[in-house]
Amino acid sequence: MIDLFISYLRKNTSVVDGDIDRIISPSILKTLRRNELLLQQGQICRHKVFILKGLLYHFGTSADGNDHILQFSPEQTWTVDAESYDQQIPSRFNIAAVEKTELLLWNRSDFEQLRNEIPALKSFAQQLISRNVYSSRQRILTALSATPEEKYEEFVRNSPDLLSRLPLRMIASYLGISLKTLTRIRHAQIHR
Amino acid sequence: MIDLFISYLRKNTSVVDGDIDRIISPSILKTLRRNELLLQQGQICRHKVFILKGLLYHFGTSADGNDHILQFSPEQTWTVDAESYDQQIPSRFNIAAVEKTELLLWNRSDFEQLRNEIPALKSFAQQLISRNVYSSRQRILTALSATPEEKYEEFVRNSPDLLSRLPLRMIASYLGISLKTLTRIRHAQIHR
Repeated sequence: MIDLFISYLRKNTSVVDGDIDRIISPSILKTLRRNELLLQQGQICRHKVFILKGLLYHFGTSADGNDHILQFSPEQTWTVDAESYDQQIPSRFNIAAVEKTELLLWNRSDFEQLRNEIPALKSFAQQLISRNVYSSRQRILTALSATPEEKYEEFVRNSPDLLSRLPLRMIASYLGISLKTLTRIRHAQIHR
Repeated sequence: MIDLFISYLRKNTSVVDGDIDRIISPSILKTLRRNELLLQQGQICRHKVFILKGLLYHFGTSADGNDHILQFSPEQTWTVDAESYDQQIPSRFNIAAVEKTELLLWNRSDFEQLRNEIPALKSFAQQLISRNVYSSRQRILTALSATPEEKYEEFVRNSPDLLSRLPLRMIASYLGISLKTLTRIRHAQIHR
């Protein structure tokens, strides 16, 4: 299972093999069952997380008590609740597993030490934060401007691999449309 | 005018006075008229920008050709189009002035050199990127979940100082609601 992380680092970063061993050394393996929470609103996010296999979702509860999915984190990506992790304050959001998920976790202090000691890891982590900024901007523009049909088409285009792994209610929640509207859109597409 | 930047740095960062002079040295003063563009979609964002006085807005054009406001950048904040600035690729968004605006600009290479040479500037810049991530998440949740009334109330609560400086059509565009709906909400509040 760890091999999935090693090949990820080799493919995506310039971290050398000696440093790969140092990065893995303090990490902890964790398995989540389907729907199990990794982080609950109000808790402090104490770990940096790499998803080896599986799929997480981040969700927030709005003023009316409904849950809304902000983000999906599939295998071969990193995740945290950034605000809670950086500032060590209670999280405003939740993270849970869509399906059985295998994770690597690092204590924040261990990961921050690795980041400071391994420049290739530091610059890579920096790139990931920047990409998060870019994709958030696009997501805001889509949320503000797109019709439900356009939102669904963009999701299918950007995340074709997630489609068959997600219950429809989760796709609807992520797109900010009702399950009824999503069902209508998919039905219309099939009959086109 | 430069004093506004010096007092900002003294108040918000641990940059020492000698370094403040170094930071200011390569900067350029620029004035934008109302509605003047600072960055146009398709151009490469070549400058780091600090707003001394005035108000900028970032907007994107959706598939249907309509403009949507992603963000306001008031005085005493920094801004760039992050994706275009970091990667030196054509911007997908525009930046323009809501009102007459006075800016300080740095060429990217000058600013990156300053950031690498002045650790207090580097860590401060890092904090600003992180805050951008947090506020984007909250904005996505609001865009997905809030009613038009809640969106407007959140805007009034978070940005009371902007209300009187923005035409209603810009507030409506930022909230992702129609001008008609915004007018109705404001009318209902006045008569409450």
